[in-house]
Parts: sequence; structure tokens; C-alpha cells
Amino acid sequence: MENVVLYYFPFKGLGEGLRMLLSYGGQKFEDHRVPKDQWPEFKPKTPFGQMPVLEINGKKYSQTLAMSRYLGRKYGIAGDNLEESFEIDQNMDFFTDIRLKASTVMLEQDPDIKQKIKDDLEKNYYPVALKKLDEIIGKNNGHIANGKLSWGDFVIAGVYDAMKNLLLQMPDLDEKYPNLTKLRENVVSLPKVKEYVASAPKTDI
Amino acid sequence: MENVVLYYFPFKGLGEGLRMLLSYGGQKFEDHRVPKDQWPEFKPKTPFGQMPVLEINGKKYSQTLAMSRYLGRKYGIAGDNLEESFEIDQNMDFFTDIRLKASTVMLEQDPDIKQKIKDDLEKNYYPVALKKLDEIIGKNNGHIANGKLSWGDFVIAGVYDAMKNLLLQMPDLDEKYPNLTKLRENVVSLPKVKEYVASAPKTDI
Repeated sequence: MENVVLYYFPFKGLGEGLRMLLSYGGQKFEDHRVPKDQWPEFKPKTPFGQMPVLEINGKKYSQTLAMSRYLGRKYGIAGDNLEESFEIDQNMDFFTDIRLKASTVMLEQDPDIKQKIKDDLEKNYYPVALKKLDEIIGKNNGHIANGKLSWGDFVIAGVYDAMKNLLLQMPDLDEKYPNLTKLRENVVSLPKVKEYVASAPKTDI
Repeated sequence: MENVVLYYFPFKGLGEGLRMLLSYGGQKFEDHRVPKDQWPEFKPKTPFGQMPVLEINGKKYSQTLAMSRYLGRKYGIAGDNLEESFEIDQNMDFFTDIRLKASTVMLEQDPDIKQKIKDDLEKNYYPVALKKLDEIIGKNNGHIANGKLSWGDFVIAGVYDAMKNLLLQMPDLDEKYPNLTKLRENVVSLPKVKEYVASAPKTDI
């Protein structure tokens, strides 16, 4: 039996997709939530100074997409051939583009510049990019690719609340992009994932 | 025989890794270089409004990492098992973090903010991140992962000049990070890649 620990901050964010993936795979794991005040001490012990970090039998893994794809391949939800695997990767790179654009608002310290970036994204970028994302998910029956469940769905579902409430600050995200909401529901209603979610701490992001 | 077209701007940038990968795989392709003034017309015909775009027998592929991994798997340089594939993915996600951070300088329009971002990265980020990248490549004998050639090496080697001359604006990159330079040499000296490079238009980025 593998000894697995998932290290992340005490909220959903980028860690939640991995927690849900491990649960889906029936993998017991220690859900190690690092409080913000302990992060400076823990940071140098991580491979790239970042979390989430996955530790499997003492070996440390980093980078959200890489780890999620790795678990997805272990659990048989990373595409059944080269074309399917590519479609997941391609659409997840697109989703990551959106997440990173939205992050620039949060990371900016200067309030004037922050507002300028936010206004620009809301006017010129989100309406196009989120609509496109929602269309892709609509065409794929509530999944990010190939019309079926993949590791990509877990990443999106996991980071959904952080996108809605922190990065995008878009309270009407559910109404505006119903397919995105459906994707999230498809993941959190999987029996083993549902069990994990019910027992996990409740957080806004 | 597959009919392959690679669409990208008339310079190396993110397109060059794919051009070199196709050459390495012995795949004949049309190297379609879209001039800047034709880009607005071509943009809506791409899957995500971005280049590079790969077209294989009429089907369009997008997103640099996803396409490079796809070709890497076709050509047998995407890791021999789950652990090796993960290591490529993880280290390439780290490389992409650096590339995207460096891109923020170029994308910023306001000259004061641009300078502020550049100074901050040069003081606080590059010395740590580029050193770490160089160490990883050093430990892997001039490769990004597993001590051997992978699709990741092609992405890095392809974007090397654009990083050095445009994104980082670091004329002494070669002297400062010799392992990174060695990785580039390892790729461009592969016989079929060397042949492609010799016949390709010369560009600074």
C-alpha cells in the first residue's frame, strides 16, 4: 500500500482537484493542510517553492497539471489513445490560460493597476474566453474533453470556487456559464468524491 | 503519408520547438509562416485565436505544450513509464512558469509599470528560478528530465533565442547558465534538426 500525503493550503484552490482525484482512485491519503503562518518554514522543503505537493512513499511530486495527469493515467482517465490524451491536454492548457490571466488581478499590489487589469479582462477577455470554455464543455457533455470524465475535470471542479469567488469575483458565474457548473456537478457527484467532499472542511475558495 | 502544416509567425518563438520536433520525427511539413499583417485575418480560423497551430490531415491542433507532448509520444521521447513522463511534465510546467513571468514584461504597455515589473523579476525571481532551471538541466546531462532527450528539450531549445533576446533581455544568458546553453546545443546538433536549422530562415527571436 502506498503512503500518500497531499500538502496544500487550508482551502480548495489548486489542491482540491488532487484531493478529489485521489479519492476517486480509492487512494487513502493524509490531507495535510499547511496553515499560512507555517508556509515560510515549509516552502524550502518543496521541489519548486510551491504547493500543492504530493508525496508518494517519500518521493515528492509538484506542479498541478503534471500531477493531475499522472494520477489520471494511473486511474485510467487520461484518454484512451494519443488523440484523446491530446484533447485533454490542449483544453486544459486553454483553461490554465484563463486561470493565469485571472490570477494577475489578485497578484497585483497597486490598487489602481489592479482595477485597470480587472476592467480590461472583464471587458475584452472573459466574455470571449469563458464563453469559449463553456461551449467546449457543452459540446463534451459537461466534461473538458472527449465527451467523458478525465483528470482535467477534477482540476477545473477543484478550483471552481476559487475562480468564482477570488480570481474572477463573478457571483453570477453559475447562471452565465451553466456548462461549467454542470462539469463541477459531474465531478462532485461521483460517489467516492461525494464522500470525500462531505467529510472535508468547508471553505469559500 | 500524413499531410502536415505548421502555422506560426515568421520567427522561432513557440513555433520552433514544433518545427524541430517534426524534423526530428522525419515528418515532412509545410512551414507556413504567417506575416504579422495577415494575422488578424487568420486568427479567427485558429482553435483558440493563437499560434502555433498544427494541422494534420485537415485536423487542427493547438497549445504548444499539448502539441509537443503529442509529437513526443508519437516519436518515443515522452518518457518510458509514468514516472518518466511525469518528470518531463513537471519540469516543463516549471519552465513555462518562468517563460510566462518573463512574458508579463513584454505584454505590459505602460513604460513605468513595465520597468517596475522587470526590475522586480531581475532582483527577486530570475536569480532563483533560472539558477534552479540550470541546476535541473545540469543534473540531467543537458536535458530537462530523466537524463535523456525528450519533447521538453525541443520546446526550450526552440524558444531559447526569444527568451534571451526578447523576454529576458539577458545578453549574458549563455555565460550565466551554461547548462541551459548545453541543452540547446544538444537539440540543434541532432542530425535531422541540424539539417532543418541550416535550411530555415535566420531570425533573432
